[in-house]
Amino acid sequence: MVELFNVLSPPDAYRVLESHLPVEVRTERVPIARALDRVLAEDLTAPADLPAFARSTMDGFAVRAADTYGASEGLPAYLSVVGEALMGVRPETRVGVGQAVRIATGGMLPEGADAVLMVEHTQEVDRQTIEVVRPVAPGENVLRVGEDVARGASVLPRGHALRPQDLGGLAALGFAEVAVARRLRVAIVSSGDELVPPDQVPGPGQIRDINTYTLAALVERAGHEPLALGIVPDDYDRLAAAARRALELGDVAILSAGSSVSTRDLTAQVIASLGQPGVLVHGVSLRPGKPTILAVARGKPVFGLPGNPVSCMVTFDLFVAPTLARLSGLRGRSPRQVVSARLAHNVASAPGREDYVQVRLEPRGAELWAVPVFGKSNLIYTLVRADGMIKVDLDKGGLSEGELVSVVLF
Amino acid sequence: MVELFNVLSPPDAYRVLESHLPVEVRTERVPIARALDRVLAEDLTAPADLPAFARSTMDGFAVRAADTYGASEGLPAYLSVVGEALMGVRPETRVGVGQAVRIATGGMLPEGADAVLMVEHTQEVDRQTIEVVRPVAPGENVLRVGEDVARGASVLPRGHALRPQDLGGLAALGFAEVAVARRLRVAIVSSGDELVPPDQVPGPGQIRDINTYTLAALVERAGHEPLALGIVPDDYDRLAAAARRALELGDVAILSAGSSVSTRDLTAQVIASLGQPGVLVHGVSLRPGKPTILAVARGKPVFGLPGNPVSCMVTFDLFVAPTLARLSGLRGRSPRQVVSARLAHNVASAPGREDYVQVRLEPRGAELWAVPVFGKSNLIYTLVRADGMIKVDLDKGGLSEGELVSVVLF
Repeated sequence: MVELFNVLSPPDAYRVLESHLPVEVRTERVPIARALDRVLAEDLTAPADLPAFARSTMDGFAVRAADTYGASEGLPAYLSVVGEALMGVRPETRVGVGQAVRIATGGMLPEGADAVLMVEHTQEVDRQTIEVVRPVAPGENVLRVGEDVARGASVLPRGHALRPQDLGGLAALGFAEVAVARRLRVAIVSSGDELVPPDQVPGPGQIRDINTYTLAALVERAGHEPLALGIVPDDYDRLAAAARRALELGDVAILSAGSSVSTRDLTAQVIASLGQPGVLVHGVSLRPGKPTILAVARGKPVFGLPGNPVSCMVTFDLFVAPTLARLSGLRGRSPRQVVSARLAHNVASAPGREDYVQVRLEPRGAELWAVPVFGKSNLIYTLVRADGMIKVDLDKGGLSEGELVSVVLF
Repeated sequence: MVELFNVLSPPDAYRVLESHLPVEVRTERVPIARALDRVLAEDLTAPADLPAFARSTMDGFAVRAADTYGASEGLPAYLSVVGEALMGVRPETRVGVGQAVRIATGGMLPEGADAVLMVEHTQEVDRQTIEVVRPVAPGENVLRVGEDVARGASVLPRGHALRPQDLGGLAALGFAEVAVARRLRVAIVSSGDELVPPDQVPGPGQIRDINTYTLAALVERAGHEPLALGIVPDDYDRLAAAARRALELGDVAILSAGSSVSTRDLTAQVIASLGQPGVLVHGVSLRPGKPTILAVARGKPVFGLPGNPVSCMVTFDLFVAPTLARLSGLRGRSPRQVVSARLAHNVASAPGREDYVQVRLEPRGAELWAVPVFGKSNLIYTLVRADGMIKVDLDKGGLSEGELVSVVLF
């Protein structure tokens, strides 16, 4: 029971862990059709101009802009139509002085032309002649060579999580596959003499395992591969064997243990036995989630998360999620959506501790209100009934009714 | 070229499509470990109380609360420790008057006890006796039977997208598998004489296919299965054959065509040939994305989306995404994150048309600013450089610098 002295704040606790994490990102090459949400592991620059040739952005006629200067309803210009630019090929006809070539949106501008006249601004006099009633400027209705991306320009940086449009951009430049961070295998062990799997009817004193499922889904949502190793009883040898297996099979190991002091001690001893540097943080100034263990063994992060479902989810977000992001080289935006809302009731807290409180969102008139869902952190359904969490900062004694709060949706 | 008369607003256009969509949601049963983000297709109620027995939320002693009334530092109560409640089994010992049973967090409350005394509020006199210096109330430090969910209570409604904590909640109640909406197969055809696949070097006048990759990723992100059928030239027979195949293989078909009038007409003719009721909407008061085609053939939605990458993404969000949600029975929150920001430049628009403008987010001091990324809708990299889109409503002539706007992130 000698534990939780000198507990660190959540950010300090994470920094201690972070300083022991491996810095190298392990990568693999994947086809772009399988690269959605993967973290780019190379800095990409454009190998060629995009577009590679001047293209029309309108249906109309490729012309020399100078031939249209001064054209108006009263004094139209007349141009001879000398050919058509077909899609997907180099136009065979050159545009000479006083000439025009029929062109469709996306067509390649023929030699000699420097602008496209919209079909709406022309009149066909006969098959060979058009009347022009408005001038065009050079470059008008034309995509310039390199207007989308110039050759050599930076396209996407290492650490960027690939979105649908990024994959389109990669396709456009001919990147059929790219280097991305490998998905991390996250081994999950749930321990507790009282746990049975969900398809089993619990006997007296038994409950079904919740955290394996919540944690696996959180890992999946973070873009990684959960590896559920099942339920282990509160026995040193069996838990130590499961933890060694987790460390062997996973890039990251999570032990979700019960919340009694004895099972917490057991988890800490087991994690300490896994290898150097071992347990780095044991106890964080956080509610719920105080008895969190952060460790690194043989180069791999190991988490001892509290068994209460709410604590488990809070500590995953605070410690496991940033670790997975860090090991993948991910930069930029947080994966969780945040909305502003007014707090519907006072929330008490203790200074010197970060508190997380589940809230339900409720529209009232034009405003969104955050209604705290009170309930012990042992209750999974406080999470099910909630839309998100609010944080009470370390230096605050609470939050007041009516205050504007940031709700992290989950 | 007889098209785009009487164009509808985007919401009206979607409503027309929606009224022709099948109402039945096709379902399948999946294990909860594979149910993340799936749409629940049944209303679930709790088959049993959770927890099914009263559990301790603290390490300490199960007692009769009445035995501790009046206990204080000056006048402690003394209780005999008559046993221990082991985890995962029914405690063998009953708590009688003046008695206590050792219990850990999560342990089952023994018969006779109605509260748990925290170990911190007791002193061990000897192995058989504890001194109690504070009273507990009945129910204190105990999770009541059904406190998390009462038997028969609604657990999760049909139409809810399953989150990590929901899966935990299902596990807790013994739902090892659940009925969810089947993922929809969305067949994608890109048409254009100028298109080549990304791994090919385009010849003069040719460009690489972008939309297959962007659309497939958008479908994947919406939780469904893209089926990329490749590139088809602008030829009626070949496009019609590809469209029939898309309708056969997919639950939904998307044709992404070029933006010239002739290819748009071709796409409309092909879609009209697929079956009844056929083309419902051709042209929407929207920029970019005006030449969108919404159709239903043989009970399946068919979309003719404009070929410009920006138009393609805007119209996917406005029409395809809600259709997929609707066919899955999904209710509730939008999948896209929204943030508020101040607009950095004026944005012009035409009343009577919804405009979508890509923006980059830029923190300036404490405020977030939305900087429009101007660029033709033919440019994929305006999307790559943007963080999200803002909408200029149908009835507005534009937005002003400094105005607060909602940015839909992508």
